[in-house]
Amino acid sequence: MELLDKLNWRYAAKAMNGKKVPEDKIARILEAARLAPTSSGLQPFEIIVIKNQSIKEKIKPVAWNQSVITDCSHLLVFAAWDTYTVERINYMFDLTNEIRGFKNEGWENYRQMLLNAYPQKDAEVNFNHAAKQAYIAFSQAIIAAAFEGLDATPIEGFDPTAVDEILNLREKGLRSAVLLPIGYRQEDKDWLVNLVKVRKPMEDLVTVIE
Amino acid sequence: MELLDKLNWRYAAKAMNGKKVPEDKIARILEAARLAPTSSGLQPFEIIVIKNQSIKEKIKPVAWNQSVITDCSHLLVFAAWDTYTVERINYMFDLTNEIRGFKNEGWENYRQMLLNAYPQKDAEVNFNHAAKQAYIAFSQAIIAAAFEGLDATPIEGFDPTAVDEILNLREKGLRSAVLLPIGYRQEDKDWLVNLVKVRKPMEDLVTVIE
Repeated sequence: MELLDKLNWRYAAKAMNGKKVPEDKIARILEAARLAPTSSGLQPFEIIVIKNQSIKEKIKPVAWNQSVITDCSHLLVFAAWDTYTVERINYMFDLTNEIRGFKNEGWENYRQMLLNAYPQKDAEVNFNHAAKQAYIAFSQAIIAAAFEGLDATPIEGFDPTAVDEILNLREKGLRSAVLLPIGYRQEDKDWLVNLVKVRKPMEDLVTVIE
Repeated sequence: MELLDKLNWRYAAKAMNGKKVPEDKIARILEAARLAPTSSGLQPFEIIVIKNQSIKEKIKPVAWNQSVITDCSHLLVFAAWDTYTVERINYMFDLTNEIRGFKNEGWENYRQMLLNAYPQKDAEVNFNHAAKQAYIAFSQAIIAAAFEGLDATPIEGFDPTAVDEILNLREKGLRSAVLLPIGYRQEDKDWLVNLVKVRKPMEDLVTVIE
């Protein structure tokens, strides 16, 4: 399967060369993220695409000074909703009705169920739920980058509060969840590029109940 | 890009026909999940593959009686570690040294940093972190199923405590995070199959900082 070839090819590049990625490639990666399935179809996240070098420079020190933050071409910040609100839920249900061109009783009942359940929950619980949905899209973006022959480095090692401040995410009701610098590997500066990929053996990962 | 074709083709099948999926296809889907990148490479989850019909029948009522639970071929349960422990962290670092054939000071320092940070954290925080990693693999499995021409229905609508009990997950230090029934759609019973896919427009999802 071609997908497995791509997954074996990719790795978390630890050094990038600063070369710019063509915008059409980035557009297809974002489209892959946009198409990701999410719980109840709410897509409870946004993606900030940072091309601006001075913003990348501000983020680098709050992300363990990882060089790929500044040496990537596009830095993607997956930012999840800080909570579920009535407005946010209604937006997606209204959009669905608009796109599909009809209202459906079952769907409207489902809307009411979410409206009666989600906004009342603790914001931290909701953010964690939203962040998981962002991870589904994040994962699809990682794969899409590999299909484009691009390197993408999944980064959780950063101070989310500091990144939220730099990007003013909190005032938009967002919190940074995970980063994905996209660019081109610089092999001669990358300690990881020639090391074997390590994964648990299948027997330690999977249990089959026959 | 072929990936986008697959992502547009796939949807969350709401009815499946019970037909069995060949094992080689399941093996490649599990391999895609195994290859998923995870935080510090810890792969903090396991995958329970349920072929047993009576176990599926037990799970169905605690998963909103969704028919795909029993009408799928293989029901994948992504179960995240209930917390990070010294043993679990050491397992992955030892495995890495074994596979790569050498010890590295930087890597050993990183191991100590995780050992000094993760096991002491609140188990719920650790489970949430582990579950996010499981979602990365879950997302890769969804895509792999599409590449195999199979339907896969992401399911969060279930009672995790009940599923944990049915599968005895807690005694293994695991907690169910998300379900993925894999099989073949049954179009004449599926209300969703002919509806347009709904996603936020790109301008509501993405902000570019030039």
